[in-house]
Amino acid sequence: MTGWLAIAGLGPGSDALVTPEVTAALSEATDVVGYIPYVRRVAPRPGLTLHETDNREELARARHALEMAAEGRRVVVVSSGDPGVFAMASAVFEALEAGPPEWRALDVRVLPGVTAMLAAAARAGAPLGHDFCAINLSDNLKPWEVIERRLRLSVEADFAIALYNPRSASRPEGFARALDLLRAICEPGRILIFARAVSTPDEALRVVPLAEATPEMADMRTVVLIGSSATRIIPRDGAPFVYTPRGVPA
Amino acid sequence: MTGWLAIAGLGPGSDALVTPEVTAALSEATDVVGYIPYVRRVAPRPGLTLHETDNREELARARHALEMAAEGRRVVVVSSGDPGVFAMASAVFEALEAGPPEWRALDVRVLPGVTAMLAAAARAGAPLGHDFCAINLSDNLKPWEVIERRLRLSVEADFAIALYNPRSASRPEGFARALDLLRAICEPGRILIFARAVSTPDEALRVVPLAEATPEMADMRTVVLIGSSATRIIPRDGAPFVYTPRGVPA
Repeated sequence: MTGWLAIAGLGPGSDALVTPEVTAALSEATDVVGYIPYVRRVAPRPGLTLHETDNREELARARHALEMAAEGRRVVVVSSGDPGVFAMASAVFEALEAGPPEWRALDVRVLPGVTAMLAAAARAGAPLGHDFCAINLSDNLKPWEVIERRLRLSVEADFAIALYNPRSASRPEGFARALDLLRAICEPGRILIFARAVSTPDEALRVVPLAEATPEMADMRTVVLIGSSATRIIPRDGAPFVYTPRGVPA
Repeated sequence: MTGWLAIAGLGPGSDALVTPEVTAALSEATDVVGYIPYVRRVAPRPGLTLHETDNREELARARHALEMAAEGRRVVVVSSGDPGVFAMASAVFEALEAGPPEWRALDVRVLPGVTAMLAAAARAGAPLGHDFCAINLSDNLKPWEVIERRLRLSVEADFAIALYNPRSASRPEGFARALDLLRAICEPGRILIFARAVSTPDEALRVVPLAEATPEMADMRTVVLIGSSATRIIPRDGAPFVYTPRGVPA
């Protein structure tokens, strides 16, 4: 049997946002590896072993997946969203680079998915419709000074900004600090979108100006989108549309 | 009949990367509107009218779609990739905001998709595995000074960078200017990925250091990914893996 490793993105939550490519890989797998809530999205079946791991064990999980593929198993590492955006793909390549040379000959594929900021933006309208950036507030491997610097430069560049993991266990205070910084450098009317668990039964969307934003509006299942200076609200009955125009006036 | 408008992302090219949500919307539609090559990805069937338009007519196309939805038709506006990333969603909301007030009561949904940079990153490994940004080089509504400023600040922030539309018809010289700028501010070994038509039969991937990159390596179907200073190559037989580690050393 020839083993392989697919690092797959399950999208933000709904099965309607899982690509057929990922569904096909899961149907051929012998082993699925990942953080508990993502593995639980995969239906059990005979011949498939589900390996649920804790969130803190990314590198160990990656090594385990590579070992199984090297033994000839067909392994899918699952992430939510897209595996290449603040998820498992980088951890797998870190493990692969540090591992035995024969791992480099393995059939390793990354299967892209709908990452959280795209699903969040779609629900709100088109807030990422112009140039934008994505910053992970969670990463306990990254000094806070780096995050602060990137936020400042992103505002200076007038990007829309997607903040991933605003209230992660590894850095729960990060989002409060980010809000303080944004208040110091942006106008109070800057538009923020708190998008929680988009496409799941727990979905909640909230659009507020920066002046009214509080740390409690974000939790571990929230992506926060910060508009650029050009981002606009279209009022209507119900939730407004939020979008960023395509052009920048000369 | 109650009309609606769905702004849908068809993904980068392969049907295996179209979400079931988009497939379902297309199966219920009476009208599909979009740029010619994207509309041609939709299979004709009785009861479905395909409206192919030129690429320069985004706002007119958006208005037409909104008018049809207001008349009770079920309209899908198709984009490649994700509709909210340098695609049709912003144009539709611009048209909606400028249009008659009754358009605000329409059922308008954005259906996210796998945007080109995620598909390109997946093919290369995980080059967007840490903080990153996305910049559209095409936009003829945006002065070049804005692009140059954003590139400089992005390099200063040490983002990985995705460049969309590097050699668009509206600004064919943009990518050559961007390369000149990058050479002035980045080390010559900075890693670039030219990802062309990913997931289609015309797919081609090329990984080169900045010193060897030339404008001709990109065309209208290419997304260019520029690594951060931390992006690494894992050599192997065949195409190398490229990834950006999750952490930043303190």
